[in-house]
Amino acid sequence: MEERRTALLVVMDGLGDRPVPDLGGRTPLEAADTPVFDRLAQEGQNGLLYVLGPGRTPGSDTAHLALFGYDPHECYPGRGPLEAQGAGLETRPGDVAFRANFATVDDDLVVLDRRAGRAFTAEEGHALEEAIDGMVIDGVEVRFVHTVEHRGALVLRGDGLSAEITDVDPHETGVRVLACRPKAPGAERTAGIVNRLIREAHERLRGLSVNADREARGLPPANIILLRGQGQHKETPTLPEKYGIRCAVLAGGALYIGTAKYVGMEHIPVEGQTGTIDTDFYAIAKKTIECVRAGYDYVFVHIKATDNAGHDHDHRQKVLAIERTDRMVGKVLRAVGRRTVIAVTGDHTTPVSVGEHTCDPVPLVLWREDIRRDGVYRFSEQDAHRGALQWTTGTDVMPLLLGYAGLLHKFGS
Amino acid sequence: MEERRTALLVVMDGLGDRPVPDLGGRTPLEAADTPVFDRLAQEGQNGLLYVLGPGRTPGSDTAHLALFGYDPHECYPGRGPLEAQGAGLETRPGDVAFRANFATVDDDLVVLDRRAGRAFTAEEGHALEEAIDGMVIDGVEVRFVHTVEHRGALVLRGDGLSAEITDVDPHETGVRVLACRPKAPGAERTAGIVNRLIREAHERLRGLSVNADREARGLPPANIILLRGQGQHKETPTLPEKYGIRCAVLAGGALYIGTAKYVGMEHIPVEGQTGTIDTDFYAIAKKTIECVRAGYDYVFVHIKATDNAGHDHDHRQKVLAIERTDRMVGKVLRAVGRRTVIAVTGDHTTPVSVGEHTCDPVPLVLWREDIRRDGVYRFSEQDAHRGALQWTTGTDVMPLLLGYAGLLHKFGS
Repeated sequence: MEERRTALLVVMDGLGDRPVPDLGGRTPLEAADTPVFDRLAQEGQNGLLYVLGPGRTPGSDTAHLALFGYDPHECYPGRGPLEAQGAGLETRPGDVAFRANFATVDDDLVVLDRRAGRAFTAEEGHALEEAIDGMVIDGVEVRFVHTVEHRGALVLRGDGLSAEITDVDPHETGVRVLACRPKAPGAERTAGIVNRLIREAHERLRGLSVNADREARGLPPANIILLRGQGQHKETPTLPEKYGIRCAVLAGGALYIGTAKYVGMEHIPVEGQTGTIDTDFYAIAKKTIECVRAGYDYVFVHIKATDNAGHDHDHRQKVLAIERTDRMVGKVLRAVGRRTVIAVTGDHTTPVSVGEHTCDPVPLVLWREDIRRDGVYRFSEQDAHRGALQWTTGTDVMPLLLGYAGLLHKFGS
Repeated sequence: MEERRTALLVVMDGLGDRPVPDLGGRTPLEAADTPVFDRLAQEGQNGLLYVLGPGRTPGSDTAHLALFGYDPHECYPGRGPLEAQGAGLETRPGDVAFRANFATVDDDLVVLDRRAGRAFTAEEGHALEEAIDGMVIDGVEVRFVHTVEHRGALVLRGDGLSAEITDVDPHETGVRVLACRPKAPGAERTAGIVNRLIREAHERLRGLSVNADREARGLPPANIILLRGQGQHKETPTLPEKYGIRCAVLAGGALYIGTAKYVGMEHIPVEGQTGTIDTDFYAIAKKTIECVRAGYDYVFVHIKATDNAGHDHDHRQKVLAIERTDRMVGKVLRAVGRRTVIAVTGDHTTPVSVGEHTCDPVPLVLWREDIRRDGVYRFSEQDAHRGALQWTTGTDVMPLLLGYAGLLHKFGS
């Protein structure tokens, strides 16, 4: 087997696009000045990824699972466990996790404000968190963490739990919090626990001085939590378990960090890394280089700004985000290129003309300095399919990266 | 259905490569003068094979199973049964087979020489073989054959055997032969049989006059056998059973002959065919033509010299092996081309720069004189993906060959 290298995956979220009239019919990737990506394309192998298969529009979470080598049709746990991991709550197989909102209800549990005013200080969040975290209901342990604004994550841990339950969040005001009901046999107990949890949280929160203080200032009290996005952590082998490799994630968004941690990556915090165009690309490059030098086998770097620009219909911002990522990868290439195999791609297409995820495939380039070249000269949606990788699906990216990095065992003799 | 032809598969072992600086950045296949392969490419269809799937590095045995249409993830029996078949020992479903070494131990079964001096005359080998072959232990029949040097193969045949057992070969000297232990429930009896076999073989071998003679000449006695590579023959339908076809293998190496026989091919000996560059390419061409004329439906020709050159980092030798194979295929084409469908490919990549198997795909060309052409003009790693077959996996080769040879039944009406 050849010498081990670090497999480096750089994902520009929502990278793919369609021809933009204001860019002369080019996509933002084609319009962007990308000397580094083009060099990778010339020296490497290119292809198009239907991340979840032809015609399927991926969510960011399912797309990333696929890029990490997991078929989301088999192992997608729902949003809850991924958000919980991203918020810093560990989950284990069997745990049921939720996204949570602070909300304001009246004495009849009629929702007055689904976000309880939205803004919370860290101190308020901490006091509210403490009131809920650590509850035990029918032997089931409750973990809760406040994240940003009115948001948080909640985990139930205990035997025999199920995520096959209905939402308690009515998703509108003026109606009562919904009773949680089982959607499948075996979920009755979990539904009951959630209903007791909501009532008990209400009892605990309504009496807190932090809420009295908010009301004194004319702010809505956070006197209940609403839960949604329930999902159960599945028996999914992690990347270290599957391949015996050490993996790092450098990302600015909780969902990406959480999805990466769910499959066994270690989150490496980068000072200044955010989910916007103002993220510190220099710091990301520096930390990536450190991870390669520290001997991580696999490093995943997530750039969110491309997707934001797509959702905002802002082609200029998308071009800028691509160009800055290009320079970031250039720094890494110059410093540690020959110790790596690099894949650059997107998780899905977010055309600036649409402003939402679409099913269009995304370009992929796979590089190491001595890989066979395939005659493609530009990293773009239009050129990629002419390369040696042609078109394939997201789950092929991980074995290709690990194979060329010498990290997969030979099968047979 | 169209007229039946002979499907001819020519595998150059380890054919694939990476750009070689001493060849001006070309691969050995690109640098080689291959008028015949290039004609096949021009008149035929081309593609790249990830033999076991993207990123997977194949062993030669698993790769050949895939090229024969068998998914090795489901049917790979381990090395033992394949080597045993190659050594001329028949195996059947349920049999457990091993690679075997003659070795030298002292009275406490401490290994003094793992190869018992390595060199054995045919007479010595025969005498040692006779002492072990035909033993019966707890109702289990033991078959043993000496092959070359200190090597041989051993087969256990009986009910309820399992290959889920540990090695007895300590793979070092100065330590005792290891006790065989079960690795899974149900393997206890087999482990016990192996332990009794090793002891009884030691008792039988130590008393042989051939060993007394060796000691008198200062050579280490072959007073034990060490077993490794255990595997169980699985319930795998053979090619004749699956397709009703008659299949031949022309190969110089025991593993390739054995893997082909395992799936039901008949071994056709070729005088002068070896596993090296000195193999008699003319004799191979002649025998291949005879097999086509004799009405074999499928003929597999294996050339090992390309892989040896890759392992030896010898790009000149690799070019030479490719060029000689090109001429060999040319002879076959001229003589019986219109009675055949020809596929030429490799089983995996062994870059001369690496000297080991790697995950890079291999080129495939599929030819019959009247197949649709795809505009590729050269048989090479760089051109193949532009062909009609694009990229695919090894298990597609057999149905493509048999399909174009008129050997597969129509499905439906």
